[in-house]
Amino acid sequence: MLKIADKEFNSRLFTGTGKFSSSGLMEQAINASESELVTVALKRVDVKDNQDDILIHLKDARINLLPNTSGVRDAKEAVFAAQLAREALETNWIKLEIHPDPKYLLPDPIETLKAAEELVKSGFVVMPYIHADPVLCKRLEEVGTQCVMPLGAPIGTNKGLKTLDFLEIIIEQSNVPVVVDAGIGTPSHAAAAMELGADAVLVNTAIAVSQNPVAMGIAFKMAVEAGRMAYNAKLAPVQDKKAMASSPLTNFLYE
Amino acid sequence: MLKIADKEFNSRLFTGTGKFSSSGLMEQAINASESELVTVALKRVDVKDNQDDILIHLKDARINLLPNTSGVRDAKEAVFAAQLAREALETNWIKLEIHPDPKYLLPDPIETLKAAEELVKSGFVVMPYIHADPVLCKRLEEVGTQCVMPLGAPIGTNKGLKTLDFLEIIIEQSNVPVVVDAGIGTPSHAAAAMELGADAVLVNTAIAVSQNPVAMGIAFKMAVEAGRMAYNAKLAPVQDKKAMASSPLTNFLYE
Amino acid sequence: MLKIADKEFNSRLFTGTGKFSSSGLMEQAINASESELVTVALKRVDVKDNQDDILIHLKDARINLLPNTSGVRDAKEAVFAAQLAREALETNWIKLEIHPDPKYLLPDPIETLKAAEELVKSGFVVMPYIHADPVLCKRLEEVGTQCVMPLGAPIGTNKGLKTLDFLEIIIEQSNVPVVVDAGIGTPSHAAAAMELGADAVLVNTAIAVSQNPVAMGIAFKMAVEAGRMAYNAKLAPVQDKKAMASSPLTNFLYE
Amino acid sequence: MLKIADKEFNSRLFTGTGKFSSSGLMEQAINASESELVTVALKRVDVKDNQDDILIHLKDARINLLPNTSGVRDAKEAVFAAQLAREALETNWIKLEIHPDPKYLLPDPIETLKAAEELVKSGFVVMPYIHADPVLCKRLEEVGTQCVMPLGAPIGTNKGLKTLDFLEIIIEQSNVPVVVDAGIGTPSHAAAAMELGADAVLVNTAIAVSQNPVAMGIAFKMAVEAGRMAYNAKLAPVQDKKAMASSPLTNFLYE
Repeated sequence: MLKIADKEFNSRLFTGTGKFSSSGLMEQAINASESELVTVALKRVDVKDNQDDILIHLKDARINLLPNTSGVRDAKEAVFAAQLAREALETNWIKLEIHPDPKYLLPDPIETLKAAEELVKSGFVVMPYIHADPVLCKRLEEVGTQCVMPLGAPIGTNKGLKTLDFLEIIIEQSNVPVVVDAGIGTPSHAAAAMELGADAVLVNTAIAVSQNPVAMGIAFKMAVEAGRMAYNAKLAPVQDKKAMASSPLTNFLYE
Repeated sequence: MLKIADKEFNSRLFTGTGKFSSSGLMEQAINASESELVTVALKRVDVKDNQDDILIHLKDARINLLPNTSGVRDAKEAVFAAQLAREALETNWIKLEIHPDPKYLLPDPIETLKAAEELVKSGFVVMPYIHADPVLCKRLEEVGTQCVMPLGAPIGTNKGLKTLDFLEIIIEQSNVPVVVDAGIGTPSHAAAAMELGADAVLVNTAIAVSQNPVAMGIAFKMAVEAGRMAYNAKLAPVQDKKAMASSPLTNFLYE
Repeated sequence: MLKIADKEFNSRLFTGTGKFSSSGLMEQAINASESELVTVALKRVDVKDNQDDILIHLKDARINLLPNTSGVRDAKEAVFAAQLAREALETNWIKLEIHPDPKYLLPDPIETLKAAEELVKSGFVVMPYIHADPVLCKRLEEVGTQCVMPLGAPIGTNKGLKTLDFLEIIIEQSNVPVVVDAGIGTPSHAAAAMELGADAVLVNTAIAVSQNPVAMGIAFKMAVEAGRMAYNAKLAPVQDKKAMASSPLTNFLYE
Repeated sequence: MLKIADKEFNSRLFTGTGKFSSSGLMEQAINASESELVTVALKRVDVKDNQDDILIHLKDARINLLPNTSGVRDAKEAVFAAQLAREALETNWIKLEIHPDPKYLLPDPIETLKAAEELVKSGFVVMPYIHADPVLCKRLEEVGTQCVMPLGAPIGTNKGLKTLDFLEIIIEQSNVPVVVDAGIGTPSHAAAAMELGADAVLVNTAIAVSQNPVAMGIAFKMAVEAGRMAYNAKLAPVQDKKAMASSPLTNFLYE
């Protein structure tokens, strides 16, 4: 079973709350996916209002909220946002996202490490969203993050595991769970990440913008389970050009 | 529900019987996969012996046997083998495989079309294993094959959907079910084929040579279902570099 | 040096005449590319008129014309077109293209083999455009075609070597030159085909629709030469994840 | 013409000195490649000895030496190594490589930025070897590095442009030259990097371990030029499945 900090998860599919056409549909899709960790952007939640529309729809007992700092541009803003989130949502879990560039929303390695170190010291369970950079992953682990969340492709592109060669190295070297975040656009991408040995995946856009988010939530749930099961069962090796000897049927036919 | 000729299938995962370490394990894995169509090489079955070891393990009522002509080198041998199979296994279904080259076991388009035409006329339900050649697929459909079975990659390589660009065209143009055969090495490959719109996949090596064929059979079952469900729910589009506007969190933080 | 039938070629870059914005620009681009074999669609040439605009611009002594049968839908039409071409253009070389589907212009394996056999018997030098089907390539070689021309990707897509895994097998098995035709969209694609061991490539769209066809012609020329030279010099092997021991600089720094 | 700091380069192919079977062969290959910037590992040079075997073979007037800090594990060691190199080799150019992990030799983003900032202040022309991380590239540019050198794949793997999606963004956003470093294993990879808009590539292993390094040096030279020329001429767009209308030849044939 997957364990991050002191929590155990039956599901290795983490989800998000952005881009759904309605909060009701979001709730149905997330429930259908059986996801137990759901990230929510602090900036989209009215933290002073416990009747907030998004939060109301995430009340299922199975769901753990994971506030994220999306929108902050440096470590200082991230730390402030994390503190706000802790107070408002009563959780010390934080998905750390720092992206100074508003166009591609790619993460800043320097500010992320700085904020991670500070937040860990302040008692947060830090889940950092980062480039698929194996050395950065080790440094984050060293300052005490509870997992690493390397991206598969630029966020929102649905391009899949473009960083595969680096994810392999990260998974090989990591002592904390590896959660592939960003870029996963199809259930087959999610399955592939799990087959590689990732501990979990985070999927948002691909579920939210599907024509049928509820069905897509179920599809991702099954694909993640399939990929994990295949990882445990060990995949058959890839063969180059597969030369093989084969006895012709001819003898049999004419004997 | 998938329909080929007069049979309906709940499962879109077809399986094979080669390369398992034992017939008992084969039976367990195939049962776990819930596959309803199982191909068996005529040359490996002792058709005169109804105590044949392979056949004994395929007695589940859910399973339809699909004899294949693997090992034949031309249309004449294929037709003869199909007739033998019909008599021995009491089925007019035949998976047509003609590969003159014993090294890569790649199919012969000319002989396959010739044999298909003759077998259809003789009342067979013909399922031809072929290269992912869109024009050949149309010609086979025209002579009356009940599906087409284009390959994803050279058989036994586990390389996945190397023929993706051509499978897309085949699926777009086909009026009979498209079953991706050969090359599928992981559940994620199977899911990807289904997401593309394939009607079914045939998986053998990847299940048989896994360290845990039973678990792998289940993993493929789930992946195929996930892929089909995602296809029906419509995938989110792939975005190139995904430029997006994003409001910074800053205003919120300091307001 | 590349030899096809009785002709030797200094250049392994074959070109085409379609899609240029003007015949003058076509001439300049082809001359800049130093291509020695240039294919021309019979249907676009007014064969009765020796002042035909395309032909006038292909008068360079270095250039061999290669009429093609583009537009025909079966073997019978192809044979007729080839005979017309032989008479009109005074060459027994023919690029055999048979594509019944007007949408993707993909080649028909059955009709191509039939026409090839007949044309070889009639004394033609037959260069067949086909799917990257290794068995079909062998069958064409057996009926006497002087080369095979498997496609890299659907024609006009510029997608590159999508059929790589099959081109490798074709090159390994072929006793006649292998010319990669269709799909090559960039000089790097052309270089990659040559590195793989292809004997030549045919490029048309990628040169013709560039903003600067003359410069693009030169770029392809260099890339083809680079790829061939690299093939002869033997490429360094691809390493999986490349684990390596490395002595740290530290000792040196502080000694 | 490519300009870095105050130097102009006719060649966009940078090379390295490792892994050649002899220094004589290294000299011939580098000369044949016409490379004008050649990186040399400080740890392999005996800086006190002006008869050092490697340096003696890099005396050609065309060649600029680019010492690198390969082997250092943090910023402090890197700065010290750079100072040593400046003194010994009489150049203020430095290729900054910091890799704490001796297995994959992947670069450390944090230490690299720290060392870069300090070295720029000390008057060095800093060329940092880094992960293909667009945000890190911008930060390095901001502290004054004269170029950025993102990797294409893990060093020594010859896997090519695995980081393509990120290189595109880096090239789009960068105000300093982008040099693709590491992973380039074939001339076609080098051409592809240049077609993408990279300003230069650095190639070492692929030339050094070829069976014929001199020919491979020439092949890379041509491929880099071809790729750059194609970039300037603008590539034809990639088409998805390329549906096209085509008039059949039939009318013509039978008119």
